[in-house]
Amino acid sequence: MAPPKHVNIAILGTGGVGSHVLSQLSWISTHHPSTHFNLIYLATIDGALYNDNYKPIDIETALNRLQTPGAKRSLLTIQTLATYLANAPYRAILADITSCDTIAQSYPLFLERGISIVTPNKKAFSGSYELWRDIFDAARCGGALIGHESSVGAGMPIISTMRDFGITGDRVMRVEGVVSGALSFLFNEFAPLATSPAVSGSAGGSAGGRWSEIVKKARERGYTQPDPRDDLNGLDVARDVTILARLAGLPIEQGSFPVQSLVPKELEGIGSAEEFLARLPEFDERMDEERERAVNAGRVLRHVGIVDIVNRRAEVGLKWFEPDDPIARLQGRDNVIRFYTKRYGDDPLIISGAGAGGSVTAMGVTGDMLRILHQLG
Amino acid sequence: MAPPKHVNIAILGTGGVGSHVLSQLSWISTHHPSTHFNLIYLATIDGALYNDNYKPIDIETALNRLQTPGAKRSLLTIQTLATYLANAPYRAILADITSCDTIAQSYPLFLERGISIVTPNKKAFSGSYELWRDIFDAARCGGALIGHESSVGAGMPIISTMRDFGITGDRVMRVEGVVSGALSFLFNEFAPLATSPAVSGSAGGSAGGRWSEIVKKARERGYTQPDPRDDLNGLDVARDVTILARLAGLPIEQGSFPVQSLVPKELEGIGSAEEFLARLPEFDERMDEERERAVNAGRVLRHVGIVDIVNRRAEVGLKWFEPDDPIARLQGRDNVIRFYTKRYGDDPLIISGAGAGGSVTAMGVTGDMLRILHQLG
Repeated sequence: MAPPKHVNIAILGTGGVGSHVLSQLSWISTHHPSTHFNLIYLATIDGALYNDNYKPIDIETALNRLQTPGAKRSLLTIQTLATYLANAPYRAILADITSCDTIAQSYPLFLERGISIVTPNKKAFSGSYELWRDIFDAARCGGALIGHESSVGAGMPIISTMRDFGITGDRVMRVEGVVSGALSFLFNEFAPLATSPAVSGSAGGSAGGRWSEIVKKARERGYTQPDPRDDLNGLDVARDVTILARLAGLPIEQGSFPVQSLVPKELEGIGSAEEFLARLPEFDERMDEERERAVNAGRVLRHVGIVDIVNRRAEVGLKWFEPDDPIARLQGRDNVIRFYTKRYGDDPLIISGAGAGGSVTAMGVTGDMLRILHQLG
Repeated sequence: MAPPKHVNIAILGTGGVGSHVLSQLSWISTHHPSTHFNLIYLATIDGALYNDNYKPIDIETALNRLQTPGAKRSLLTIQTLATYLANAPYRAILADITSCDTIAQSYPLFLERGISIVTPNKKAFSGSYELWRDIFDAARCGGALIGHESSVGAGMPIISTMRDFGITGDRVMRVEGVVSGALSFLFNEFAPLATSPAVSGSAGGSAGGRWSEIVKKARERGYTQPDPRDDLNGLDVARDVTILARLAGLPIEQGSFPVQSLVPKELEGIGSAEEFLARLPEFDERMDEERERAVNAGRVLRHVGIVDIVNRRAEVGLKWFEPDDPIARLQGRDNVIRFYTKRYGDDPLIISGAGAGGSVTAMGVTGDMLRILHQLG
């Protein structure tokens, strides 16, 4: 029989993803009794549960206990938390399910002390290249591991696939796709395929409605950030592109490659999201023209991220696709990523599906925890 | 620093996949110097390389040495090989890259002695359910691991995705798709989407040519087995379906679910592939009718495998798909698998790409080896 495996877990963040991580860990404890995730620290925004003697917190009741008056203790500082975890009886994994920049910046500090990191947060991996290098160097020195499957495409096997290409010696030539659920929806509505030429004679969908109306609808449904400019500026896609490029071996800096923003220059400085939306119709004609040019070329307009490893460049912006291209044929808010590699040749590996959502994002996180548990345990 | 990891490797088979596995292992040794795959046994059909004192065989020159007169020794019997590997100084992985049934049957014997198994071969996992259970029981008892990523969809992350769903507590509801490159090509040619109704007015492609001609062409190009009936009978797809069903928790027996064969009953017993192909045109009308019925319903005819976990059933056969369905839109010889799970809801995870080929199949094998090395080492 394989020996039981133990690892200590610290979780920062108990929101939409964090609560799903807790329930998945609870499921795993019940169904894989030889897998021991000892939850020894659980932090929410204003306090934490933990025991000085490392006695594990009951995962089932943890969220309720956080609500119990007097149960929460003060948050440990980053330094104190690192010491607490480094001194624990088993190896520790820190699950960062916040979007705090300070925590992202401190990953090297945990890693060099042997504490592994799992996170769905893309900040640390898409920040400065120096931080990226520090993170992976610290992990190597500390004998710790890093899991960030959900940093691109949520629970879809994107990062693990990139990793497998790398470690088995395949050469990734090009990675491209739609990694923003918001931009996926906007373009699937604005330039729907049903009106493209190969389908009914008028490519790329002038029948797709007005851009400003679609942006408004997407926001109302909660498909965009509260301020849609945070999606339309392409910076979130640029973060994914940065991560994918680095995984493919390009030491790229964010900001060093072209990112086409869909926020009109004139509306960048405008105060509130409401004001922005009120003035957006003034610019519908520009988007109509973009769509029309693609239509006239028999193509479909999409907003994508591209990593071109062969030519050592990356790009985020509007591109045209053939109507039978899976990128043109996305639906709803789906993401799609296409990997061209030496081994796959002209026939790329394609992964598509939901790239957001609490439970699938959490699945990427707990999957990473299990992988690390097995490697360390 | 993480300590170096050592594992012993025995490889059975040096054909199209086996030779790629060797070159990938050689790449890994060069690029990950802390990863030690010690090749201690390499067998081809009529002999093997190995040293009684477990001195590793040089991977770079191994294939050449197999050709050197006098270098090969007699093959070890299965029992002797198991003892040889069990007594080795590090944990061992047996890579079975043959299609020998006897070896598949003997996996439990290796596993219960602590020897892990990796294989692209589907035989063991799609044989009797008793063998499946014996394999996983033996692995548990022996503390050994099993990797069979390439048993479905070659290097695509199909098995690992199913495993991740399972271990993190997602519930797979339905898995379906095209997992045969040969059948993919045949239907993409026979009922091409370009002639489906949403595209040009005549669904599912009566313009797709004659079935018997397409089968002949596929065989000439080497896309089918030497005897195309080995693809057309659907049994290979049924093996994939059996594996996927079992991974999803259905204790299914092969032969216990409907498999629609495309070999006309009248031609099943006919001698050679040539005779079969010569008589196949007599049955073109039947396939025309199948295609026509789908066309008339505005759908596209495809041959697929389906695992319906909710209703505890599986099926292989002809089905109709909407023209905008990714299954209808496959190209060339691509495979596609669609996973419906509790977490993904109505918006399935879809993986598509090349489901065959020496180097991608080998990548699934070496990826499994690395995963096992990290877990055992």
